[in-house]
Amino acid sequence: MTALQRHSTVFVGGALGVWQVERCDTICGPVLPTVERVAVYEDDVPSAASTGGWVLRGIASYERYVHRAEHEALAARQPVLGRPSSRCAALIPITKSAAWWELTQDERRAILEERSHHIATGLAYLPAVARRLYQAHDLGEPFDFLTWFEFAPEQAQVFAELVERLRATEEWTYVEREVDIRLTR
Amino acid sequence: MTALQRHSTVFVGGALGVWQVERCDTICGPVLPTVERVAVYEDDVPSAASTGGWVLRGIASYERYVHRAEHEALAARQPVLGRPSSRCAALIPITKSAAWWELTQDERRAILEERSHHIATGLAYLPAVARRLYQAHDLGEPFDFLTWFEFAPEQAQVFAELVERLRATEEWTYVEREVDIRLTR
Repeated sequence: MTALQRHSTVFVGGALGVWQVERCDTICGPVLPTVERVAVYEDDVPSAASTGGWVLRGIASYERYVHRAEHEALAARQPVLGRPSSRCAALIPITKSAAWWELTQDERRAILEERSHHIATGLAYLPAVARRLYQAHDLGEPFDFLTWFEFAPEQAQVFAELVERLRATEEWTYVEREVDIRLTR
Repeated sequence: MTALQRHSTVFVGGALGVWQVERCDTICGPVLPTVERVAVYEDDVPSAASTGGWVLRGIASYERYVHRAEHEALAARQPVLGRPSSRCAALIPITKSAAWWELTQDERRAILEERSHHIATGLAYLPAVARRLYQAHDLGEPFDFLTWFEFAPEQAQVFAELVERLRATEEWTYVEREVDIRLTR
């Protein structure tokens, strides 16, 4: 069954996990309870893990906006997750407005890339900042996306610049909930 | 919470429901057990409903391929579901291959519309055949999509032609599982 090939990734905020929370800023929308640590699981979450805090789930699904040439450029530069040097991470859950989801595919693509340069901007920060996008819109989760970033401590300022650039775009005017969780291990 | 605004639709094949199964053909891939009736629920499925048969769940989610001009053309012609004259329906669950999902957005759009004319073909059968697409790929369901069609008995041949035209396209070479369930009420 195809179903067995699609694994969800579960982020559990609580007292457990290798990632220690350094900061948790609510950028817009409802607050996410502050926790001490974040644990990352593939599919199965041990029952002990979900005491207190929050549980966010997403799927590393097919690409929604990337074109072939962009895919090849990204693939050539993007590092794997879990590099030993990546002792910093960020989990940034995001929800976009109903107005965004009512746009058609060509309109969303035009805002995301032609006008906001989201893909090109991400590319410019590779391989310093490793990134994975988890889709959650169709899962009935509180966020539409969970974005996960990993980088070395000396790249923290570079990562901050990437986030700042994205937040200044037209695309971000459609973001109605965003929480920025900075982590170290 | 945004989560509360996204309802899943659940199709339950068994002994209950207003829709009586006339035919159930496995077009390709694993068979779906033959049932007598199909019931359609929004979100909550009564516990008595799921005895035997199968349960398929999907989300009427945002549009993945339609451009603005196509959206307007569809919106101008597409009828609501539940017309009194629509005493025939079809539920066609579909799974596409890994090769499809590994294509980028521009490649999938080119195959779906520029080369297979999926959207234009559907438009040509409006308002005779009402249609709703439910996304299931990210839900870990056995099918990627559930497509639901409604039409009057005198349009059954027209509907058969629509399905035949779609199955002859390049897009359909990526379909690895398809079941065609014809219903009446």
